[in-house]
Amino acid sequence: MANTVYIATSLDGFIAGPSGELDWLMEFPNPGNSDYGFAEFMERIDALVMGRNTFEMVASFEGDWPYPKPVFVCSNTLTSIPDHLNDKTELIGGEPAAIVHQLNERGFRNLYIDGGKTVQSFMREGLIDELILSRLPILLGDGIPLFGKLDAPQNYTLEHSETFSNGICKTVYRRKW
Amino acid sequence: MANTVYIATSLDGFIAGPSGELDWLMEFPNPGNSDYGFAEFMERIDALVMGRNTFEMVASFEGDWPYPKPVFVCSNTLTSIPDHLNDKTELIGGEPAAIVHQLNERGFRNLYIDGGKTVQSFMREGLIDELILSRLPILLGDGIPLFGKLDAPQNYTLEHSETFSNGICKTVYRRKW
Repeated sequence: MANTVYIATSLDGFIAGPSGELDWLMEFPNPGNSDYGFAEFMERIDALVMGRNTFEMVASFEGDWPYPKPVFVCSNTLTSIPDHLNDKTELIGGEPAAIVHQLNERGFRNLYIDGGKTVQSFMREGLIDELILSRLPILLGDGIPLFGKLDAPQNYTLEHSETFSNGICKTVYRRKW
Repeated sequence: MANTVYIATSLDGFIAGPSGELDWLMEFPNPGNSDYGFAEFMERIDALVMGRNTFEMVASFEGDWPYPKPVFVCSNTLTSIPDHLNDKTELIGGEPAAIVHQLNERGFRNLYIDGGKTVQSFMREGLIDELILSRLPILLGDGIPLFGKLDAPQNYTLEHSETFSNGICKTVYRRKW
């Protein structure tokens, strides 16, 4: 069982611009049309857990729903999921540890934790086992940060590192307990 | 001519703990006793530029003065350098661009820009050409950040990436103009 964060950030640690802008990410040159290993990663997870903001953003994208695995949306304000996403997503409430426990019990053992606030709250509770960071070679200078405050430092081991011709550096870290 | 930042950070972008703590860095396991390429880097720079805080911290360390190249200390408050460092360091004032201009005129063409506030101010003025980041596999959760606000995003190219057995990932970026 593992909870994994798989996310792209700027060199200065932002996952989006100040107003949630993703153009620097979406429009970043990708000559080889690489998915940077995302499909392979998707295969080994059982479900996604994301916050409302990320869910609403992904739901607003044109085109097909991007996730082949069940998506659990953490929200205290949403009361329902749009009809056309009802078979793909489910609302889930509670504290991070309770969410993990509940999903593990239901057989979802490997979870992909996504979205700024959700990642920060799971990280603060010490619930992240694996961190897959793809750093774009850009300084945004401002924006929504990936990392938040922690009560204590957390140590990781570097499991893998990979660079792409467009300058993206992908690193895989595993929590050292 | 190039202005280079060569620095170690945590995964969450801190160069020191909240009170300037460096134990996480100084005591990080280094089984091969690697200098991570620092001596080689030192050879290709002509001088260092650092702020008062970094200067005072380095000056407080026991042992020999660590830099084989002239050190220029940016400060508006210091009026003199301790006697025993007089042949190694010099006070310099003014705006970042003026400092670079002045040092270039004096023949110091490749500058190593060091220290949190100094790096941030040079970066904000678009004066950093090369960024050498060594990421330790640790989340500090709080501290003194390497990166600060910028007026506009800055693009870089990834020139080199290297990992060490202890999990440090070193990346060399060059500013894309």
